[in-house]
Amino acid sequence: MKFHTRKWVKPEDLNPNRSLFGGRLLAWIDEEAALYSVVQLENPHVVTKYMSEINFMASAKQGDIVEIGIDVVKFGRTSLILRCEVRNMMTRETIITVENITMVNLDEHGRPIPHGKTKVEYVKDRLQNKI
Amino acid sequence: MKFHTRKWVKPEDLNPNRSLFGGRLLAWIDEEAALYSVVQLENPHVVTKYMSEINFMASAKQGDIVEIGIDVVKFGRTSLILRCEVRNMMTRETIITVENITMVNLDEHGRPIPHGKTKVEYVKDRLQNKI
Amino acid sequence: MKFHTRKWVKPEDLNPNRSLFGGRLLAWIDEEAALYSVVQLENPHVVTKYMSEINFMASAKQGDIVEIGIDVVKFGRTSLILRCEVRNMMTRETIITVENITMVNLDEHGRPIPHGKTKVEYVKDRLQNKI
Amino acid sequence: MKFHTRKWVKPEDLNPNRSLFGGRLLAWIDEEAALYSVVQLENPHVVTKYMSEINFMASAKQGDIVEIGIDVVKFGRTSLILRCEVRNMMTRETIITVENITMVNLDEHGRPIPHGKTKVEYVKDRLQNKI
Amino acid sequence: MKFHTRKWVKPEDLNPNRSLFGGRLLAWIDEEAALYSVVQLENPHVVTKYMSEINFMASAKQGDIVEIGIDVVKFGRTSLILRCEVRNMMTRETIITVENITMVNLDEHGRPIPHGKTKVEYVKDRLQNKI
Amino acid sequence: MKFHTRKWVKPEDLNPNRSLFGGRLLAWIDEEAALYSVVQLENPHVVTKYMSEINFMASAKQGDIVEIGIDVVKFGRTSLILRCEVRNMMTRETIITVENITMVNLDEHGRPIPHGKTKVEYVKDRLQNKI
Repeated sequence: MKFHTRKWVKPEDLNPNRSLFGGRLLAWIDEEAALYSVVQLENPHVVTKYMSEINFMASAKQGDIVEIGIDVVKFGRTSLILRCEVRNMMTRETIITVENITMVNLDEHGRPIPHGKTKVEYVKDRLQNKI
Repeated sequence: MKFHTRKWVKPEDLNPNRSLFGGRLLAWIDEEAALYSVVQLENPHVVTKYMSEINFMASAKQGDIVEIGIDVVKFGRTSLILRCEVRNMMTRETIITVENITMVNLDEHGRPIPHGKTKVEYVKDRLQNKI
Repeated sequence: MKFHTRKWVKPEDLNPNRSLFGGRLLAWIDEEAALYSVVQLENPHVVTKYMSEINFMASAKQGDIVEIGIDVVKFGRTSLILRCEVRNMMTRETIITVENITMVNLDEHGRPIPHGKTKVEYVKDRLQNKI
Repeated sequence: MKFHTRKWVKPEDLNPNRSLFGGRLLAWIDEEAALYSVVQLENPHVVTKYMSEINFMASAKQGDIVEIGIDVVKFGRTSLILRCEVRNMMTRETIITVENITMVNLDEHGRPIPHGKTKVEYVKDRLQNKI
Repeated sequence: MKFHTRKWVKPEDLNPNRSLFGGRLLAWIDEEAALYSVVQLENPHVVTKYMSEINFMASAKQGDIVEIGIDVVKFGRTSLILRCEVRNMMTRETIITVENITMVNLDEHGRPIPHGKTKVEYVKDRLQNKI
Repeated sequence: MKFHTRKWVKPEDLNPNRSLFGGRLLAWIDEEAALYSVVQLENPHVVTKYMSEINFMASAKQGDIVEIGIDVVKFGRTSLILRCEVRNMMTRETIITVENITMVNLDEHGRPIPHGKTKVEYVKDRLQNKI
């Protein structure tokens, strides 16, 4: 699993219990999953269709740094199934995992269309192939 | 199910596909579940522990108004299990449902403690009881 | 008066005196009034034209939950006059009241037009009428 | 009247009618009134107590620049009464005026205390007086 | 140098060291420079092209008020070079200075075009000239 | 150079010219530099002291994805000098580079103290060394 985006837990990310707000974490995960899909499917019209159950295993407090990792579970025909893990950067403690985030590839009118991808591609390889 | 909080879908709530960002919706749901629990358990130290699978059935676009409904599924000893539905206010189309959101009642040190509640209470009844 | 939207007072909602920022409260009220009008007038082109004097009777602190209530004062020809009350959910202490919020119904070019409504309608009744 | 703070109207400041959201404008006014009072009264513990009726005379659209002006109406014993005008910087069209914004000077426990000020002071004069 | 916009340092503006976040300050400066340029060049299509080195001389803490000053260094043919200083309003301590912020005047397609301006104009004079 | 954090350019990140707001980009860079330093120096009390000149080479538009890369230029005694590059993820076009971002390591009272680090460490190696 590749961990990319890092977030600093700030006052506006806390719940009144002074730990990281679950809803904020879910918003970060959804954005990261969407970003990952847009890059992989080379299409900005990608939406989240399904998210499997979410277990909040640990939390984070103000000033902590968390990193968000994404892995591909499966390339469907019009979908891309991802797995996500968020962890604390210093301790590597896992905060949350989501086993199945299903993203759907859409056309300009918002209807699912095949994306034609079958494996993870790296941007640098794509660029070389275009030379 | 009681529907309380209403949200107006604004430009900052949209994904690049110009529909309501799933992550924003999850953040709204988590906040509403937390608010509901704080009021019911009469304790601000409440956190989200678990959220069951999420199916995005429909979306919403800029200018739409959505309302968020919460129901109690079960009062546990230290937990409160909620069900949530979000729908479009004008069409009543359901956007998302979450069958199980488990909130946990904490003490000041962040440890689960029994909340002593067994049924939904309304603030107006509580106030009358105190007279 | 129906109380719908609930807000959790967060760090970013506080003034340096560590109480709820008046301006934030006014923004919440204006949004709720606009939402209410859009639903009642079945028109998204609704703007705030006038707000009567505002008395800050109490405040709220971080972690408090406030609820925002709206009542109709009068249906004008192109306008809708609302009354608003914001109160603390746990104590029912009133934080603020605004006796007259005048919303105006606009056409697509931003000019006032009659809305044709004379009484409060509930979405569920509307839907039944359409069957 | 001195016009200081300038705001650029951005997408997140618009209502669904695509004009400047009234609530956002009120939040800007309240913040500017508070800033002005903190500087004048040399006390960060200042809160808004009252705001007279508000007439939305014109609006603004995305990309417009508005400037916010504040004048002192009266120095009370524990209060400071301000007048506010917001206008469009390019056309000088007045968007809104608020004739009376009453700010109250508080002690550290949140109780009103006399501020001892009777006229507008400029920071540069204060600094010279301290030499 | 004219100091216009004032900002109140709020919890969401702080870094974990509880002083004003440098990035927030840079965002405020860039916005103020853009606002100033739009007014001077009478063109909303203005972008930041270059910013000279930045020295953080002092910081600010929650509740402080800072003011942002802008001066014109030079009117170029398609550019406008500004100087910026941010200081604490109460102490007049300088927080940051940026000696050269180069703004470029664009046409509707995003290409640099001459702005035709050679000196600072005040909005009130422009209005008088139009009479 | 390692590229970690990715950002999706949203409506609230745009200037009125509808390209990515320079100030927003600077805020993202400063946050990423601070995050990187906190992890490397194992100290949350890190502040930005200096940023060398900034050249906006290209911009980005709504829906684009940018990634932010950080490299260490030099470990000083109390400082850490970083280099930053931001690029468009799909085209790899460079949007901005900053050659020198000087971060300073502080003690709890905000005074510079030696950080004792001389080279880049990876979190996974640190964890292994602790076993």
